[in-house]
Amino acid sequence: MKILAVNAGSSTLKWKLFNMPSAEVIAKGQIERIGLNDASETTEFAGKKLVEKIKSKNHQEAVTRLLQLLQEYKIVEKLDEIKGVGHRFVNGGTFFSKSVIVNDETLITMEKLKVLAPLHNPANIMAIKAFRKVLPEALSVAVFDTGFHQTMSEENVIYSIPYEFYEKYHVQKFGAHGISYRFVFNRLLELTGGKERKNKTNSILMHLGSGASICAVRNGMSIDTSMGFSPVSGITMQTRSGDVDPSLLIYLENQLGVSSTRVLDILNKESGILGISGISPDMREVFAQKDNNHRADLAVRVFVNRIVKYIGSYAAELGRIDSLVFTGGIGENIPFIRRMICSQLGIFNIELDEQCNEKAVSVEQKISSANSAVEVWTIPTNEELMIAEDVYDLGKN
Amino acid sequence: MKILAVNAGSSTLKWKLFNMPSAEVIAKGQIERIGLNDASETTEFAGKKLVEKIKSKNHQEAVTRLLQLLQEYKIVEKLDEIKGVGHRFVNGGTFFSKSVIVNDETLITMEKLKVLAPLHNPANIMAIKAFRKVLPEALSVAVFDTGFHQTMSEENVIYSIPYEFYEKYHVQKFGAHGISYRFVFNRLLELTGGKERKNKTNSILMHLGSGASICAVRNGMSIDTSMGFSPVSGITMQTRSGDVDPSLLIYLENQLGVSSTRVLDILNKESGILGISGISPDMREVFAQKDNNHRADLAVRVFVNRIVKYIGSYAAELGRIDSLVFTGGIGENIPFIRRMICSQLGIFNIELDEQCNEKAVSVEQKISSANSAVEVWTIPTNEELMIAEDVYDLGKN
Repeated sequence: MKILAVNAGSSTLKWKLFNMPSAEVIAKGQIERIGLNDASETTEFAGKKLVEKIKSKNHQEAVTRLLQLLQEYKIVEKLDEIKGVGHRFVNGGTFFSKSVIVNDETLITMEKLKVLAPLHNPANIMAIKAFRKVLPEALSVAVFDTGFHQTMSEENVIYSIPYEFYEKYHVQKFGAHGISYRFVFNRLLELTGGKERKNKTNSILMHLGSGASICAVRNGMSIDTSMGFSPVSGITMQTRSGDVDPSLLIYLENQLGVSSTRVLDILNKESGILGISGISPDMREVFAQKDNNHRADLAVRVFVNRIVKYIGSYAAELGRIDSLVFTGGIGENIPFIRRMICSQLGIFNIELDEQCNEKAVSVEQKISSANSAVEVWTIPTNEELMIAEDVYDLGKN
Repeated sequence: MKILAVNAGSSTLKWKLFNMPSAEVIAKGQIERIGLNDASETTEFAGKKLVEKIKSKNHQEAVTRLLQLLQEYKIVEKLDEIKGVGHRFVNGGTFFSKSVIVNDETLITMEKLKVLAPLHNPANIMAIKAFRKVLPEALSVAVFDTGFHQTMSEENVIYSIPYEFYEKYHVQKFGAHGISYRFVFNRLLELTGGKERKNKTNSILMHLGSGASICAVRNGMSIDTSMGFSPVSGITMQTRSGDVDPSLLIYLENQLGVSSTRVLDILNKESGILGISGISPDMREVFAQKDNNHRADLAVRVFVNRIVKYIGSYAAELGRIDSLVFTGGIGENIPFIRRMICSQLGIFNIELDEQCNEKAVSVEQKISSANSAVEVWTIPTNEELMIAEDVYDLGKN
């Protein structure tokens, strides 16, 4: 059964076509710069990688083009081979704790959620609608990045602001990277003794990509996570600030003579590793310069420092840590960051096997030493596969 | 030698007159509602407490009145008995790491710092100027609430925002309650074996008052603290929110149809324990209702939860905790809050002596059990005495 996993951003459409349940990847690609004059498509299949300039005014056109290229390149013969389409949906609010089959009713709820994730949800909805139009027979499924965190307790979810804002305006912590956390946690169980460990393991999972967050898991459930109401908060990211003093917005509004919206834009797009280093949002590039550039060195240290502090706070909440998992572009691929983080966790008797750590790039690997009180793992995430699995499972029922 | 310790707020002037070096309190009091039609003064001396309605248009008038009443009540015979006046100064920026004798030059620097603490610094400066005018012969000393935190490393001080904002606009973590932390840490050393322990003890100090913060101390120096650029951030306070997602300001600006300044005002004055509970900013009142009021219960749990998480993060930074100290109105006087906090710190093998804890109200007391890996103390703070001591020491040199 062919299932398409779709991740739509404001100007991108990433996709991966799976054969399920074998999880074989038939093809994958992305359409970029949707709505701009220089849109392009990248398509990978059967060992080939094709890049083309295209015209793509909006998500509807991008979806039409994607289905066209699947036939053009003979990736599928007929479109009705695609039995399901799964969409990554960024913020499902408090309405969606699990993946759902999209119908007219769920779409009405989704429309209401636009205000909570104005940069992401509208694109998700556009993509869902576009696919429903051109593939009306395929099962349409939404998979929520916030769903995994719906198990957090009220005390971890609310902010210390007037309670009315929580009840009336849904101001609360939603978290993110839930699809990734679910995938990685499932793999952790499979790698360390199976599902019966689910209720016996306290884990701290770190999704360190261009966006980044940390999640504390007990009994298989998220109990706390570093991203909050929006994707700007939590740990330091490539271009996002993570946690800041809220007064700073008003102060910078006045100092810079710009609107509060513009300051928030700076916190989202010009901050983080990029803002501190002044060099690049890319951790590798910044790290390469750390020995002779103070700001590069500082950016790396701040990135690590914030992660260490969140781990400390989640350790206190969990009461015991059994496993620590690194995933995401930085977490899977950059051993020195893992080394720096773990070297500051001596209070929890965490110790890496240095050699294992150095060699572990894009692999599932235990990287802690035999003496470590906590198992440390690298587990590459696969959000698209998680999405395809959810579509497959919902299609079976 | 008589020394006056002064703490000026935007509409208050609190004072305490010491005989130094004995630290005997000769008299104390406050002038409230300065600038309003119903200003009043409270004066305590020789076992008496007098409350009067007065006229007090501004800080200059309040200072004049204070000096008048000291003579009127014969607390001093002549004003020149007062050899020094020490002022609590909220935000000394990066210019003042230690207490200083105020001269025309320091006042120029202080004027520049107004923008960093617009609610507090201007009042401090007004009071300093007023006293210099009427007591020109007395030593004028400023004692900074941020001074103790000037030892924090750059990685703990900066936010993950464009570095230029740190260099150019002084956007950084300043912290608060530094006078209290210095006093309490000195007492901790005296209580636990003297100054030679200074470089051997890792401590987490909690100033839990109407404003509240946490501080990690290593080698006698603050290495991190929960309050940031302004007093709104960090843990949950009586009416202040502590940490929130910065996006929330813009979102509430739009939802409520108010300015970002108004939202910040809500975060400062209508949030925290008051905002969650909807009952009161007072922890005792809220706790009293927690068994039959969900929001009261939630407010208590959130207050404790945020403290536990900060302790966890500072434990990770310190690598080892030797002592945990409670101070401030809540920290000194409310055993159940201390019990709730410590009961969630099992990962650090912290254990209270329940009986000791219950009885420890407004006293210097070790409240941990013999089995506890960490010594837990209650130490009442005395910021005014710390100020008077600094004035005395600077006067000697």
